[in-house]
Amino acid sequence: MNPSYRSRTSRRQIHQVINGHSRVQQDSLAREEPLEIRLTSPHLPEPFPVTVTMRTPGDDFDLAAGLLFTEGILPSGETIHSITYCHDPQVDGEQRYNIVNVNLHGNIPLQLQHLTRNFYTSSSCGVCGKASLEAIHVRGIKGIPDGFTITDEVIYELSDTLREAQSVFEKTGGIHAAGWFDNEGNLHALREDIGRHNAVDKLFGHAFLTNQTPLHEGILMVSGRTSFEILQKAAVAGVPIVVAVSAPSSLACDLARQFNITLIGFARGQRFNIYTSEQRIRMR
Amino acid sequence: MNPSYRSRTSRRQIHQVINGHSRVQQDSLAREEPLEIRLTSPHLPEPFPVTVTMRTPGDDFDLAAGLLFTEGILPSGETIHSITYCHDPQVDGEQRYNIVNVNLHGNIPLQLQHLTRNFYTSSSCGVCGKASLEAIHVRGIKGIPDGFTITDEVIYELSDTLREAQSVFEKTGGIHAAGWFDNEGNLHALREDIGRHNAVDKLFGHAFLTNQTPLHEGILMVSGRTSFEILQKAAVAGVPIVVAVSAPSSLACDLARQFNITLIGFARGQRFNIYTSEQRIRMR
Repeated sequence: MNPSYRSRTSRRQIHQVINGHSRVQQDSLAREEPLEIRLTSPHLPEPFPVTVTMRTPGDDFDLAAGLLFTEGILPSGETIHSITYCHDPQVDGEQRYNIVNVNLHGNIPLQLQHLTRNFYTSSSCGVCGKASLEAIHVRGIKGIPDGFTITDEVIYELSDTLREAQSVFEKTGGIHAAGWFDNEGNLHALREDIGRHNAVDKLFGHAFLTNQTPLHEGILMVSGRTSFEILQKAAVAGVPIVVAVSAPSSLACDLARQFNITLIGFARGQRFNIYTSEQRIRMR
Repeated sequence: MNPSYRSRTSRRQIHQVINGHSRVQQDSLAREEPLEIRLTSPHLPEPFPVTVTMRTPGDDFDLAAGLLFTEGILPSGETIHSITYCHDPQVDGEQRYNIVNVNLHGNIPLQLQHLTRNFYTSSSCGVCGKASLEAIHVRGIKGIPDGFTITDEVIYELSDTLREAQSVFEKTGGIHAAGWFDNEGNLHALREDIGRHNAVDKLFGHAFLTNQTPLHEGILMVSGRTSFEILQKAAVAGVPIVVAVSAPSSLACDLARQFNITLIGFARGQRFNIYTSEQRIRMR
């Protein structure tokens, strides 16, 4: 089985009830499975398990690379020698596609204690909001430069474009999308996942592996809401503009302001709200 | 400051853009802040940090208790002596309300290595889907008994009742709700949070602290989707029926089937879908 062809949906028999009448139907559900991400290196006696995330299968290598990048564990795609599914004969066939080994070059020094601590503080945001914001700052991430701008008319089109490009959403109603757009509203990349943060990691992971980061020239569009987690990933990737279909959280706004990210919410039809760094939006 | 009165929303100045016209407005955002949950015990030299979760302030003690319960770390509310905000003078004022100490009775033995491993396997679902399902089974959780049933007419009313009872959603559009209903559709408890799983933990945590678990007689209703995480918590709490406004994931269905939980999705107006254990729904 070629894992790149694993289905993102799963067929189930359901009872559909409408106004007191029940009938049996087939339905497509968004597939959800765990992905364990391991680091391997000539310096390690055995693979080091970094984390397990519940995800929709597909673009697993992008997801693994993206998570290691946005969590600050790997500084550049050049540290990665290869990414492979698990070859462990003790793991049975189907589950091998739920374990990804990110194999590092031999000249990359790995301090696992440091790695674990780093991951802890970034994924769980440290002891408090202040501490977590400081932790990001410490990692050397700076505010995003101002150069990239777009017009309001570009924004009106983004949510329709994203929706139309989604392959799975219409069938299941349960999948988040993350899209990467240029300043004319052209969609360059799209990733989907049952987890909003995973869709973003898949998108950024692809850019990371192809040495396109930092992403200073483009727009991240996400279905649904924006939370701390999404803005943290955008800040690490260097994204100037984040647009969402729904509302941001207070901490998402705080983070956007700190890193000079233009944060837009409720982008639906001919309207949207700008929460931070409005100087990048030109009104026509 | 009495922390029970902390606002769940945060006011911000935004630019609202409609069809090419921009105006400055005030907007309410859902508040998002980290909560660190620590265990203390006479057996421990210092508080043991279990996890940090990003949450909307409010019902923090319920959230802490619920998370420790649904993750299988604490078996009963009677193990808890008290729950308090951080008293550490080294933590500055505002952040003390982002750290909760769950203080255990002296006769509760704590094996921290075991606790950490338990938490890892439950929160991150182990190495693979199969392993995680087995991990739950190992904890001694059995299928939910069949006795509790409801009519289809009760289900038609749930989403409107939940929506009307929500205090924050209308203002911010960014808050998930979890409600606990009886077999006539009466709402007994409601909790809200920016994280769907946190809203459920707050709801179950209250029941856990007041010794009402297992919750074999009632309906859990959640806004949004259902994933592995929500069904895992429902299984641990013993909930017979889970109803959601949107779609379930494939793994949510698998878990529901394994534990004989009736899983319902797309409950909107006079219609809904039954994914598993339809014997609890009586058609009138």
